[in-house]
Amino acid sequence: MGLDFHSPKTTRYLQVYDYYKDLIIHGKLEEGTKMPSIRRCCEQLGLSKTTIETAYLCLAADGYIIARPQSGYYVTGRAAKNQAKKAAKRQEEPKQKILYDFTSNNADEDSFDFDLWRRYIKSALRQDKRMLTYGESQGEYELRETICNYVINKRNAVCTPEQIVIGAGSQSLLNLLCPIIKDKQKVYFHDTPFAQGIVIFEDYGFEIVENFEDADILYMTPSNMTSLGDVMSVEKRLEILKESASHNRLIIEDDYNNEFRYFTKPRPCLQGLAGGEHVVYLSTFSKLLLPSIRLSFMILPYDLLPLYQKKRALYNQTASKVEQLALCQFLRDGHLDAQIRKLKRLYSNKTKQLCYELEQVFGKNASISTGESVSIVHVKLKSNLSNQEFCKKALQYGIKLIPSYIEEKGYAQIALSTCEVPSNKFSEVVSLLKQIKE
Amino acid sequence: MGLDFHSPKTTRYLQVYDYYKDLIIHGKLEEGTKMPSIRRCCEQLGLSKTTIETAYLCLAADGYIIARPQSGYYVTGRAAKNQAKKAAKRQEEPKQKILYDFTSNNADEDSFDFDLWRRYIKSALRQDKRMLTYGESQGEYELRETICNYVINKRNAVCTPEQIVIGAGSQSLLNLLCPIIKDKQKVYFHDTPFAQGIVIFEDYGFEIVENFEDADILYMTPSNMTSLGDVMSVEKRLEILKESASHNRLIIEDDYNNEFRYFTKPRPCLQGLAGGEHVVYLSTFSKLLLPSIRLSFMILPYDLLPLYQKKRALYNQTASKVEQLALCQFLRDGHLDAQIRKLKRLYSNKTKQLCYELEQVFGKNASISTGESVSIVHVKLKSNLSNQEFCKKALQYGIKLIPSYIEEKGYAQIALSTCEVPSNKFSEVVSLLKQIKE
Repeated sequence: MGLDFHSPKTTRYLQVYDYYKDLIIHGKLEEGTKMPSIRRCCEQLGLSKTTIETAYLCLAADGYIIARPQSGYYVTGRAAKNQAKKAAKRQEEPKQKILYDFTSNNADEDSFDFDLWRRYIKSALRQDKRMLTYGESQGEYELRETICNYVINKRNAVCTPEQIVIGAGSQSLLNLLCPIIKDKQKVYFHDTPFAQGIVIFEDYGFEIVENFEDADILYMTPSNMTSLGDVMSVEKRLEILKESASHNRLIIEDDYNNEFRYFTKPRPCLQGLAGGEHVVYLSTFSKLLLPSIRLSFMILPYDLLPLYQKKRALYNQTASKVEQLALCQFLRDGHLDAQIRKLKRLYSNKTKQLCYELEQVFGKNASISTGESVSIVHVKLKSNLSNQEFCKKALQYGIKLIPSYIEEKGYAQIALSTCEVPSNKFSEVVSLLKQIKE
Repeated sequence: MGLDFHSPKTTRYLQVYDYYKDLIIHGKLEEGTKMPSIRRCCEQLGLSKTTIETAYLCLAADGYIIARPQSGYYVTGRAAKNQAKKAAKRQEEPKQKILYDFTSNNADEDSFDFDLWRRYIKSALRQDKRMLTYGESQGEYELRETICNYVINKRNAVCTPEQIVIGAGSQSLLNLLCPIIKDKQKVYFHDTPFAQGIVIFEDYGFEIVENFEDADILYMTPSNMTSLGDVMSVEKRLEILKESASHNRLIIEDDYNNEFRYFTKPRPCLQGLAGGEHVVYLSTFSKLLLPSIRLSFMILPYDLLPLYQKKRALYNQTASKVEQLALCQFLRDGHLDAQIRKLKRLYSNKTKQLCYELEQVFGKNASISTGESVSIVHVKLKSNLSNQEFCKKALQYGIKLIPSYIEEKGYAQIALSTCEVPSNKFSEVVSLLKQIKE
């Protein structure tokens, strides 16, 4: 790199800076080398003292050179160290590679009609004028309206578009929610604890309590109470609502995967059963469409609405506007129902196939069951390993499993989500599991 | 809506529920109407007592009916009230309509090559397999790598892709940052206070301090110190870095709009001048491309990295994966430089035109100046109104202006951002401003 001094005066020191930085980074000026004195440098380059001084100050501030009193500037070892650091970073994480992830919520290749979605994205992108603005902080109104109709019809929710807030994932919504429910501080996770929820509450200084009675916030996943997808009965729902109301507890209802039921129609959501009060409803489209589409929504109860509306203008919307507009039209055209039917068919077929393969190989040594969720297989294997030990051993073969929360001596109990792993790998995996067991 | 009882048993109560809910919502069963007794309803519909009871319980929980002891169930006024509430909501906010927003960062219609961007989105959407997964929590690696090269070359930053975190907007990034810098609690906004930053710090319980010396976090926008876009000199930057290091202050450098300079080349960022230490660097592509594209990034210093990496897996990425991949290729193909040149040309021409129109109409009664930023015009008008009063009056004409923070008796001082308002509206606006002045 050479020096070109035909550019405006103000940027010359930057060129001097870049020039030396480059030499140092690439090892052409080694650690300990003395830099030319400022005076000599001025003469050599035909530049003013200020220019050189500024450049040297920047280089020193940057750590490339260091001033030694009564002696001058010297090249430091910083650049070299940085290179070493970089190299070290790269070599991290040589973990066991996961070949078959049965814990994953990633989608199956056949789960989504990409061509259809591309058409909606393309049509959204054609709305040039709408792309020029930040858009509504709460989410595009037409999408909120469409979602509102959807949850009223499908989930028996009670709400208006004014109560619906769009965000890029449930965590983005919890980031909006936590600051407006700060009068409550103790959160109880009623069903399977949700690590990505816990972290957000903790970030805001909320306490996660072990005991139901200590809580003033209940985080519930009534459509997915356990890893097997158990669903809460309406009676139990009503009971919890009554009890929560009498203790002034706020319920956060995370309704993800409510559509993926084997046997039953989805139960009405808590939000609707409670008449829209004292319940914050959360749901997402990432699991129905594609994990990479970050679109979730929450329904705020009327008593939290004024607080939210007061602060609303201060928060930028996180979800992509193109994806919001595409989803809106996709929903309006009625594609979601077809997509849900498709997913249920796909995952339930995969689940059946996996059950069959497991039965063929393990016979009487395993009891295999499916829960309410269409994509989960539960396996109870005769084994001296604990659930955790079994999963750990499976990982050595590249298989990631869900350990059951129920332990029973003489058995290893595990669950497998059939979402991600393609079905043509199932027999391979089952043979590997057979080896572990033995 | 009729009742169809050929469906599975478990969902019948829902149909009864829906049936009555519908009648009530549409006013066919008015407030105070007595519901048929459970026994009679069983007979009429030929369903079991449990089914009807569950449906009534749901309707009651929902607030549509209410039980009166020893008498039966009655329709409440809830549905009617809800309708009224909805209607009331709609009528809110009849505020003065803003016709010309000179405070807006929304983009000009001509600022963006939509066709070009659509091509990149389409090509990203073709990567079916990648859309099936949630993607990297920190942001797609290839985009981080590309951004890393960009900030090293253009901003003199010192970093590796491992230090770069992608998010859907600066607020999403602050949501990740605040929890890992909790050992510090007092934030000072060194330059123009940034409302959307303040709200996030306050959400996490940080204190916003009035005094520089009390702070342990400095939030700085050295490339945009004032509404006029004043840029901090390198000497001042070095001084602040030195002082911050000696007081163990963390600097958050929000480098937005660093590219939009009239006179000077962008100054090297604080992050680079500090050798990548003790500075968190924030920047966004929303302002360079389109406000609706939610893509920002931060560079974490090495000492915060382990903390972030420990928690990273718990946070889902907020930015759209399609847009991440599209931006990555857009950057790699070198389109950003052309886009920046285009924006500078466009906004600087608009700014010149507005200055000209103002000079023509106000003559000696106004002094008009432009700052370092290509899109801001500063106007000092002879007037008995204060800055705020002038802006308030302008709003009555549908014109939204930025009041200057400098007050001088006998003058109204205002600023106008030329981003959003199309240039063919300028003479209209200037005539209106003339009326206010008089």
